[in-house]
Formats: sequence, C-alpha cells, structure tokens
Amino acid sequence: MGRWQTNARGRLAQAAIELYGERGYDATAVAHIAERAGLTERTFFRHYADKREVLFTGANELQDRLVTSVRDAQLRTGPLDAVASALEATGPFFDELGPFVRVRQQLIEANPELHERELTKLAALAAALAGALRARGVSDPAAELTAEAGVAVFKVAFKRWVHADNDTTLTQTLRESFAELRHVTTHHGPNPR
Amino acid sequence: MGRWQTNARGRLAQAAIELYGERGYDATAVAHIAERAGLTERTFFRHYADKREVLFTGANELQDRLVTSVRDAQLRTGPLDAVASALEATGPFFDELGPFVRVRQQLIEANPELHERELTKLAALAAALAGALRARGVSDPAAELTAEAGVAVFKVAFKRWVHADNDTTLTQTLRESFAELRHVTTHHGPNPR
Repeated sequence: MGRWQTNARGRLAQAAIELYGERGYDATAVAHIAERAGLTERTFFRHYADKREVLFTGANELQDRLVTSVRDAQLRTGPLDAVASALEATGPFFDELGPFVRVRQQLIEANPELHERELTKLAALAAALAGALRARGVSDPAAELTAEAGVAVFKVAFKRWVHADNDTTLTQTLRESFAELRHVTTHHGPNPR
Repeated sequence: MGRWQTNARGRLAQAAIELYGERGYDATAVAHIAERAGLTERTFFRHYADKREVLFTGANELQDRLVTSVRDAQLRTGPLDAVASALEATGPFFDELGPFVRVRQQLIEANPELHERELTKLAALAAALAGALRARGVSDPAAELTAEAGVAVFKVAFKRWVHADNDTTLTQTLRESFAELRHVTTHHGPNPR
C-alpha cells in the first residue's frame, strides 16, 4: 500500500479512481466516493473542491518540488539541463502512484473537461519553471522558452510512458525525449532519425 | 476596414470585441453583441456556439492552413524548419486582425475560462501538426516533440509580440524565438546569452 492510501485524502483518491474506472467519471458522484472510502461527503470537501480535483492531487506539491529543484541546481548547470534534471527526478514519484497514473491518463484523454484542467496545470507549471529560471538569472525569452519546451517534452514523454507496454521507467523515457528534442532542434535535414 | 468586418460573422466579432473591451467579458451578453452589430441573436448563434467562441474565430482555418503548409513543405526541409516556416507565415494573418488581437490577448490572460479554451486550441494545433509531420514520414516521438516544441515557441512569441511596444512583426518575433529555442537546446553552459 502506497503512502497516499494511508490517510483520508489518499483513501478518497483511491476510492475515486476505482469508481471512475468501474462506472465511469460522469456516473460517479462525490457521495459514491465518500461511501467507498468509508468517509463522509463533508470530509471529501475538506480535501477536494470537486470530483475533478481528485485527479490532480499532488500537482501543487510536484510543482513546488520542481521549482525548488530548478532554483537550487548548481550554477554551472545550463537552463534546459536544470529543467530536464528536475523533471527526470519526478520518475519515482509517479512510479509509486502505480495504476492510478494509467487510469487517470485514460480519463483525461477521454474527457475534454479533464483534458482542459490538465493543460491548465501544465501551463501553470511552465510559468512557475520560467520564474525559477529567472531567479537563476536567465533572461526572457530564454527562460520562458526553456520552461515551455521542457514542459512540452514532459507532456510527450509522460504520455509515451503511460501507454508503453514495456518496463521503461519514466526517468528513462524523459531522458530519451530530451535527447530527441536536442536532436530535432539541431538537425536541419529531411530525415530526423 | 479589414476583410473580417464586411460580413455578418465579422461584424459580430467586431461588436463583441468592442463590448468586451468597453464593459468587460462577463458583463457582455449575446443580446448586446447582436444589438451592437445590428443583427439578431438568432444570426449570432448561426455563426458562433457561444460568446466565448467569438474570440476563437478563424482558429480552425488557421490550423488547416498550418497543416497544409507543413504537409506540403519541400522534402529536403527538416521537421522543425517546416513547422517554423508554417508558423512564421501566419504573421500577415494576425497583422490584419490589428487591435482585435491585443484586446483578445488581454481577455484571455484575465479570464481562466478563456485561457483554458486557448490552451485546448493550442494542444489541438500541436496534435494536428504532429499528424502532418507523420504524413511526411517523421516518426514518433520526433513528430510529436517537434510539433509540441513548435507550438510552445509560437505561444511564447505570440505573447511577446502582442505585449511589445515596438513595431517588430510577429514573423520576426517568431524567427527570433525559434533561433532562441535552438540556442537553449544546444547550449549546456550556465549563461544562455
């Protein structure tokens, strides 16, 4: 049992993801989630604003961790390397979440409202990372471009990793994707591989 | 008077943007927009699903144009160059829209609901451009990464261009931003400039 299942907040997330998988997102109400978790609706609303927010639990903590990592990277580290290292270090966090991540991704891809929320969170992450780069003395537009490009790589790599039917880790997929970004931006010929 | 103001669809967009600027987005109803344009609400709804959609008029045509441009680029053109050229060629389209673009950007930055819609449109554009690259024989993840990185550059450059207080064109700002992306992805040192 992972860390996130041992408290009320985690039990509610666990119950929600089970129900979304079993009967679908639209057909699941907060009352069902609370009942499955053995808690009250009132407890649910102490932890989450709505049933959508359950799927984005941990996003703020993750963003804070990434910002700290970029801000504290060694000064000799280049901006994109700082962003790439920070993102690659999130691998174990997602590994621990296990099947939650896969069900969540399926829901987000199938539900436009959830997809919009995901895109908004990623845009906020890019803005926060750009701020962390500025705090390191990187000027605009380099800071903003590096952050946006880094989040674009994360988005592509994360989707690839969730859908992969092999054991490649998220960290490894991110490393390959950052290498691929460097390749497509430096290669001007017709055939990128 | 620009091309888009000479027909019902354009007159409604013109009226909407005026009213959004004058009294704010939230305080403007479809009835006000129709009245200002000298048209009926029924006519409004023949052209737009809701008052939000007015701000995204032309997005589908623009996406089609970009996809065609990437698909038809010369075979010796590299993937990122094909995407960059297509995006740079949209400059005159936005120049023609004039003040509409500036008011629209302010609204999108101030209104979370509009911001979400904008992000969704950009994500759809990235997916469409990735498809156009695949049609050129670019494999994944290179196709997806190139498209996402290209749209990230567009997002940053567009915002810079709208907020700039000089006469730099969008095409020029895009060119500089693509050069900057190539710089940040190839430079590993601590100082990107």
